[in-house]
Amino acid sequence: MSTATIPEALVAELRGTRRLLVTSHANPDGDAIGSTLATAKLLRQLGHETTAWLRDPLPRLYRALPGSDEIHCGEEPPVGFPQNCDAVVVLECPSLDRTGLEDALTGLPLLNIDHHLGNENYGVVAWVDTTAPAVGEMVYRLARALGLEIERDVANALYLTLVTDTGGFRFSNTTAAAFDAAGDLVREGASPETISKWLYESQPESAVRLVGEMLRTLEVHADGKIATAWMTREMAERVDAQPGDSEGLIDFPRSIAGVEAVAMFRQLDNGYSKVSLRSRGQVNVEEVARRFGGGGHRNAAGFSSQKVGQELAEETITALAEAIGRN
Amino acid sequence: MSTATIPEALVAELRGTRRLLVTSHANPDGDAIGSTLATAKLLRQLGHETTAWLRDPLPRLYRALPGSDEIHCGEEPPVGFPQNCDAVVVLECPSLDRTGLEDALTGLPLLNIDHHLGNENYGVVAWVDTTAPAVGEMVYRLARALGLEIERDVANALYLTLVTDTGGFRFSNTTAAAFDAAGDLVREGASPETISKWLYESQPESAVRLVGEMLRTLEVHADGKIATAWMTREMAERVDAQPGDSEGLIDFPRSIAGVEAVAMFRQLDNGYSKVSLRSRGQVNVEEVARRFGGGGHRNAAGFSSQKVGQELAEETITALAEAIGRN
Repeated sequence: MSTATIPEALVAELRGTRRLLVTSHANPDGDAIGSTLATAKLLRQLGHETTAWLRDPLPRLYRALPGSDEIHCGEEPPVGFPQNCDAVVVLECPSLDRTGLEDALTGLPLLNIDHHLGNENYGVVAWVDTTAPAVGEMVYRLARALGLEIERDVANALYLTLVTDTGGFRFSNTTAAAFDAAGDLVREGASPETISKWLYESQPESAVRLVGEMLRTLEVHADGKIATAWMTREMAERVDAQPGDSEGLIDFPRSIAGVEAVAMFRQLDNGYSKVSLRSRGQVNVEEVARRFGGGGHRNAAGFSSQKVGQELAEETITALAEAIGRN
Repeated sequence: MSTATIPEALVAELRGTRRLLVTSHANPDGDAIGSTLATAKLLRQLGHETTAWLRDPLPRLYRALPGSDEIHCGEEPPVGFPQNCDAVVVLECPSLDRTGLEDALTGLPLLNIDHHLGNENYGVVAWVDTTAPAVGEMVYRLARALGLEIERDVANALYLTLVTDTGGFRFSNTTAAAFDAAGDLVREGASPETISKWLYESQPESAVRLVGEMLRTLEVHADGKIATAWMTREMAERVDAQPGDSEGLIDFPRSIAGVEAVAMFRQLDNGYSKVSLRSRGQVNVEEVARRFGGGGHRNAAGFSSQKVGQELAEETITALAEAIGRN
């Protein structure tokens, strides 16, 4: 059950538990990292020992966050675990297996804090608020409810969760509560300018060059409703592309006025193609992806294919045109 | 004198004046347009007749704003002016000439509302708050002070001013007050998602293609501290570029990690070159621009040159390297 109200049992558990492990999902994003870091720091004010543990390393983008090096990353447990652990705060995970640490954590008392629809309500107490713009916004409210001081590093960590989960205050989850929290976090020392520089002005040169390469392949079909673009191995080699460089590339074709669906074709090293699909509004690309053996959500999906080049493109464009027509 | 407090004289003037003209600066941006539209609508709740008049047409981007077609644009005065005008609200203009309508407005009682450092404090009353993130945020506070209801269209118009003047909540003027206002405006019906789509997902195809063309000319110099890029007439022709397409292009080279200064060279039809300069932090490109006969601000400046090609580039890069060295 989704509720904006913090369960009293959660407050009691957090006050009463002396040694806490804080974790979040594998392949951590801004919300996972910022929430984990902030929660671990905040709970120390209660006199608790806290350890932060994520299975995967932090993407380069987030390593600028002060204190992010305190997060223990990897499959190996942190020193002293599980003897030094009375309970585990699990942030932003609809189910425990999303931590990637299920084997290590199963059997420990779990405190489940999440905003995902479909959270399995696992744990000794679960607080699921599907209206929350970010789990970081829930942690912010929790800090206020526990009467904790929000220090500058925590304010920045929580501000980061808001920015990343709302797409820079652009997505439909940009609620009044998101702005209320942001305003308060700025008062506590968060710097929107600094965090924006980390997120948006610290691109590798290769990633910026890759935008140029990709846009040279931009094509528009179906009266401007479908845009396609390619990312080939030659392009990646030409710009000396690094892992992660292609992230967000698909947003460029998607930003064109009138475009309702986008396909980006990426050549993989194994000869397969990876097709990423995006759409606006009611156009359902999940159905398209499923037809080709993939999956995803209504507005963001993808699939892999043995086909390449023109054949793959034509097949995909036809399917996207049908999806637009069904709408 | 800058003050966050709304002068009582301004409140009295706005309450007491029956027929008001609302205007802002020439070449209007989001803050000018949103503030003008909102002010004209809000003051009607006091039973006033209000007319909105801007000298220049609204850029395409802002025409999606509901009610924006009510703004009279052009050098010709709106019907009935000046007989139907007891006073003029001048928004976001450090001096009256910035309206581009100085001849028509001189002699009328002026109510000056602005957030620019260096506002000349002209008018029968001047409210200058240099700490305000946008003049729209001042109009928001004014609406609250006057006890006016903020309708959905007004909420969206004022939200637009916040987004555009803070660069999407990224610039250093992204204050707690900006977020407080944004939260409240969302409660009054503003839609961050809708406005983001207007601003960021309604690009002409040619503008997106131009990004690709420009990035193919990207060069990095001085140990990665200087980035340069070109926009030639051939590129513009190839993508069938429209006026305004090159706006914001310079942000791409500027987003590279480690880059401290950027020069973008644009070939003009008259054979001259236009050089746009951007920098981060303390690096002063205004000094560089001034040396070549141009001007601007510390982090954004520009100049025109009769030189072209390699000669122009080398000269500019040398000057930028010196500016970085002085820092």
